[in-house]
Amino acid sequence: MDLCVVPIGVGVSVSKYVVACHEILKEAGLETELHAYGTNIEGEWDEVLAAVKKCHETIHQLGAPRITTTIKLGTRIDKPQTMSEKVESVVKQMK
Amino acid sequence: MDLCVVPIGVGVSVSKYVVACHEILKEAGLETELHAYGTNIEGEWDEVLAAVKKCHETIHQLGAPRITTTIKLGTRIDKPQTMSEKVESVVKQMK
Amino acid sequence: MDLCVVPIGVGVSVSKYVVACHEILKEAGLETELHAYGTNIEGEWDEVLAAVKKCHETIHQLGAPRITTTIKLGTRIDKPQTMSEKVESVVKQMK
Amino acid sequence: MDLCVVPIGVGVSVSKYVVACHEILKEAGLETELHAYGTNIEGEWDEVLAAVKKCHETIHQLGAPRITTTIKLGTRIDKPQTMSEKVESVVKQMK
Repeated sequence: MDLCVVPIGVGVSVSKYVVACHEILKEAGLETELHAYGTNIEGEWDEVLAAVKKCHETIHQLGAPRITTTIKLGTRIDKPQTMSEKVESVVKQMK
Repeated sequence: MDLCVVPIGVGVSVSKYVVACHEILKEAGLETELHAYGTNIEGEWDEVLAAVKKCHETIHQLGAPRITTTIKLGTRIDKPQTMSEKVESVVKQMK
Repeated sequence: MDLCVVPIGVGVSVSKYVVACHEILKEAGLETELHAYGTNIEGEWDEVLAAVKKCHETIHQLGAPRITTTIKLGTRIDKPQTMSEKVESVVKQMK
Repeated sequence: MDLCVVPIGVGVSVSKYVVACHEILKEAGLETELHAYGTNIEGEWDEVLAAVKKCHETIHQLGAPRITTTIKLGTRIDKPQTMSEKVESVVKQMK
């Protein structure tokens, strides 16, 4: 999953909320990778989605009246593939 | 929520899978609105996300080895607001 | 294209900006379809993307210091397909 | 920008197309950061969007009949901010 949570109605600086979200994901024991436009998360469906729900709940508790989140979510049943394997399959084909 | 499920590895025509997905959402009793690039869904978090999970499971069962889904997911605690109210708040301000 | 423009730092009510954006798309002569979580747009690449750029410029001029936009963008070369044909191909397969 | 290009109708393995896309971005002189669910891109609007268009054209030429792309696109006029500064503003607030 690629997760990008955007609190609305709390001004332009949203890093505080991203930090809170990142801590929830870590406490959930999920593999995460922070990048400049979201966080990649690897794990089982229920664990990952439960953590995303907790992110929304926590960000509302921290004062954000409204949240809009963009998620890209990939599943595959043909083979297991980790986040780092996805990156490697691209990197090794680059010149 | 705006949901766009893309099965990968089953050719260019994906409407069969979108239909299956739409039926799952309807059976779940969720308010839905199909549009040209996804489906809007209104409902409680757990019900909506359970239906999305079932969509992935069903599409895999129908033969898609891989799925990539894009979700926009909005929550707000300042006021209740339905999908149609969101549209109306824009439409009534148009010339 | 499915376009969802979110101005940040202007409070929770963003419909004013969505309206401005919608007018730009109409003035550009693009086929549009407003829904509860964005606007679908049909047209040639350059026209559509020029309108999206103008949306960002205009929303900044209206006072939004920061904007985050989510776009789904589809192209196909196997056959022409309008937005309404995409919806119809799903609807006619529904029970 | 966060860019995730998904060719449809070419099977489950899409890394070849991601590589082609990444090379186009590099040739365009854009700052990029590959991650497990897309590529972050930093640059001026016209340069970035021209490169995305070239990605679509090239992936079609490589044989993909259909492409669906998900883009997150951020602009701000209150202060300059690079991709790495976005990440740092979060990392330095973590425990």
